[in-house]
Amino acid sequence: VSVDSVEQPLILLFTGEENVDKLVQEAKKKKLDDKIIKQTSYGDLAKSIDVPQEEKYFVFSIPHGPTGDKVIEGLLPHLKKGDILIDASNEHWERTERRQAKLEPEGIHYIGMGVSGGYQSARHGPSCSPGGTPEALKKVMPFLEQFADKDKKDRPCVVPVGPGGSGHYVKMVHNGIEQAMMSIIAEVWAIMHKGLGMPYIEIADVFTAWNKDGPLNTNFLVAIGADILRTKHENGHYVLDEIRDKVVQDVDNTEGTGMWTCEEAAHLHISAPTIATAHAFRCASAGASAREKVVEAFKQNIQPPKFELDDSKEKTIQMLQDATYSSFLMSYIQGLHIIRCASDTYKWDLDCKSLMQLWRGGCIIQSDYIVALLESVFEKNNFTDDMLLTSPNIASEMTRTFPGLKRVVLKSMEYDHFVPALSASLEWYKYNCSTDLPTQFMEAELDYFGHHNYDLKTEALGTAKKGQHHYEWKPALGIREKPGAY
Amino acid sequence: VSVDSVEQPLILLFTGEENVDKLVQEAKKKKLDDKIIKQTSYGDLAKSIDVPQEEKYFVFSIPHGPTGDKVIEGLLPHLKKGDILIDASNEHWERTERRQAKLEPEGIHYIGMGVSGGYQSARHGPSCSPGGTPEALKKVMPFLEQFADKDKKDRPCVVPVGPGGSGHYVKMVHNGIEQAMMSIIAEVWAIMHKGLGMPYIEIADVFTAWNKDGPLNTNFLVAIGADILRTKHENGHYVLDEIRDKVVQDVDNTEGTGMWTCEEAAHLHISAPTIATAHAFRCASAGASAREKVVEAFKQNIQPPKFELDDSKEKTIQMLQDATYSSFLMSYIQGLHIIRCASDTYKWDLDCKSLMQLWRGGCIIQSDYIVALLESVFEKNNFTDDMLLTSPNIASEMTRTFPGLKRVVLKSMEYDHFVPALSASLEWYKYNCSTDLPTQFMEAELDYFGHHNYDLKTEALGTAKKGQHHYEWKPALGIREKPGAY
Repeated sequence: VSVDSVEQPLILLFTGEENVDKLVQEAKKKKLDDKIIKQTSYGDLAKSIDVPQEEKYFVFSIPHGPTGDKVIEGLLPHLKKGDILIDASNEHWERTERRQAKLEPEGIHYIGMGVSGGYQSARHGPSCSPGGTPEALKKVMPFLEQFADKDKKDRPCVVPVGPGGSGHYVKMVHNGIEQAMMSIIAEVWAIMHKGLGMPYIEIADVFTAWNKDGPLNTNFLVAIGADILRTKHENGHYVLDEIRDKVVQDVDNTEGTGMWTCEEAAHLHISAPTIATAHAFRCASAGASAREKVVEAFKQNIQPPKFELDDSKEKTIQMLQDATYSSFLMSYIQGLHIIRCASDTYKWDLDCKSLMQLWRGGCIIQSDYIVALLESVFEKNNFTDDMLLTSPNIASEMTRTFPGLKRVVLKSMEYDHFVPALSASLEWYKYNCSTDLPTQFMEAELDYFGHHNYDLKTEALGTAKKGQHHYEWKPALGIREKPGAY
Repeated sequence: VSVDSVEQPLILLFTGEENVDKLVQEAKKKKLDDKIIKQTSYGDLAKSIDVPQEEKYFVFSIPHGPTGDKVIEGLLPHLKKGDILIDASNEHWERTERRQAKLEPEGIHYIGMGVSGGYQSARHGPSCSPGGTPEALKKVMPFLEQFADKDKKDRPCVVPVGPGGSGHYVKMVHNGIEQAMMSIIAEVWAIMHKGLGMPYIEIADVFTAWNKDGPLNTNFLVAIGADILRTKHENGHYVLDEIRDKVVQDVDNTEGTGMWTCEEAAHLHISAPTIATAHAFRCASAGASAREKVVEAFKQNIQPPKFELDDSKEKTIQMLQDATYSSFLMSYIQGLHIIRCASDTYKWDLDCKSLMQLWRGGCIIQSDYIVALLESVFEKNNFTDDMLLTSPNIASEMTRTFPGLKRVVLKSMEYDHFVPALSASLEWYKYNCSTDLPTQFMEAELDYFGHHNYDLKTEALGTAKKGQHHYEWKPALGIREKPGAY
């Protein structure tokens, strides 16, 4: 945090480190020392803000895991009924719920609050997704509404998400969507630069144009992509050019949210391959040293060559935009399928429409067109049973952009460009939009060796439950006689 | 279980149901009633097999979850020190370890044993992967060696896997690999039949030929695929034709292993997109009713048309075999990366080479050529640090089959065929085999908004840890001024 960002009274909690002293010094110089108070014990800290008959509010943002438990342990003896702890870390929602279960009986409220925006958001406000008891949420909302970023209509990007760990959960899925979108924009950048031979400045102009109008307008990751492509060192070299292709924060455990989103998708049986594939891509990218050894063993370093996507430049850019947009949209939809299923499974009863406000500003996945589209869909139907893909509004956007996505993926694959998230999106689109999948053969194999039973094509469809039919494919098998044609 | 399968003395444990009475009756008729004993209480059961100074062995195979805890609770009062429980269910490895931690202090051994082979394996023996204390494993191995299937050299397909829940873990990953392989063979079947217009009998002949010689020899899923394609009802209709494209056992929670494999891959930061994508495909397939609604909204039901893969039939079949084989191999490798990482993380110290014996017979992923290849790799190096892809033996197989895989994926995608697992494998191959990935751009975006730091391209590579460099992309941002070009 920088002293410049202290715009309104903030209570900052410290337990004594060098950089804290530095901050206090800086605050003194700027006559802000009434706003920055250093405390070195939980007792002194609590005492310094305690007023009889009034609740104390605490906010902390620390690494996920046991650190939070230590903070609670330290504070607990100095708390009184009604005090509120706001955990603004990227904490796992289940840990949040365990802490709530421990503190609520003591009359202490514990709010698990997702905060999106990165370190830059300290300057303009983040997007906040708090979850906890309605009573506690009601109390902290006025404070959070000041703190949060504002959307274009000056509405704060914060809503009371729901009970329990739902606030941290929604932020977790936000980060899963973010990982997918970052893979998509990175894949598209590489196609443009390394495939189509577009100079950085030209790509930056395209990103800026996309960000101004149309389905990618006010999209944060596109916007900063343009910034990055224009950023040079003093010596005239692009900063981007010096950066290695190595994303490690999933592998070194400093970030849990992407991994947790993948775990939750699997756990809840939600098909979210764009998100899962992007995560797998990042994990492989972290092993830069291992990849060097693979390249040696394979006697091959895949460095995709230049190619042309289409004759007209305008159409090429249009197809790239369609591919980016439709894959972004699918990342959002897959994430929302996870949230909706979690809301049912964990009995949170979330209002999907209101959640859209979280993603209008401040956050990394900010994408005004997509959010408006989804909001219009939730306005008609909260989609408690169905996939979002069954909405005609979404269907028309998807079918319109499908040819561009398909062409970009095909051409990129032809020239060995890397399109894990784009191709996973394409496949997800296709198989959701068919009643004639190859899984028919899979079902037969499962019934063959596992007596799994199947449904007949001629039967009416109900909910997803086990089929009623079995065929005894190898009825005459005797002892030690094996199935199969060998 | 069928009475015909009782080949050697087996102790079968029941707690009294109709089908048990039926089985006992049948056994009586076949003069096998000394081998089938019905018991209706845990006490009677334990007493009936109790011999002073000798340990009792129990085997059970039940649905995963709380049922196992009930069985243990029921048996525990009737057990003595040294008794061994073998849990042959598809239990989650962590639940297995919790039970071991509870029982071992009482002197009771608990072995978590994966069993693969499906119901058909009751007749020729399954593949067994037991995990537990060395002492207990040593005692049960002679029994398991009789029970298990035998490989071509008549060696039993069972090895003492390792401590704790490692036996159930290895079976869990087996099932993850199985899901990936089933997706691959199903995708290839659909390309052959619906794309290339090959009649079932012709595909069956191709599968049989593949299963006889070459890299897909003695491959169970290919073998039963041929059987399925030859199986007709009495009226001459193919059984396969009546089966709906709906695989539900991941969604209805009757199978946990595939989902757990995806969770573990994410948790351990292993890039396993073939496995994860196949799982996502199955989950989407289960929602057959939702897919019908999507088709309606999209006004489009994707039913891929016929196409030609290449001029010569022989070359076409060769490319399909290359695609199938290389994707199978990648499924195995991804699964083994998970196992190897788990072995390190959970301190199991597994011997990967010995595990190969589990997959030589009995199990669903049986694939003699692939297993022999992997065994030869493990003979040289147990790969505790590196990816299997760094082995020259594997590299030469992969580079040889890459053009076929690529061509099959490209052509299939061009005609909107479904290739989620094949295309995920292709992408995984490519990005592991490059030191010039689009994740360079992702890393720049993360540093922009999150101060994530990066490594320079010019720096020597070490282990996967956070980079040392940060660029202040938007240093002049004031309060409420937003990043980006809008």
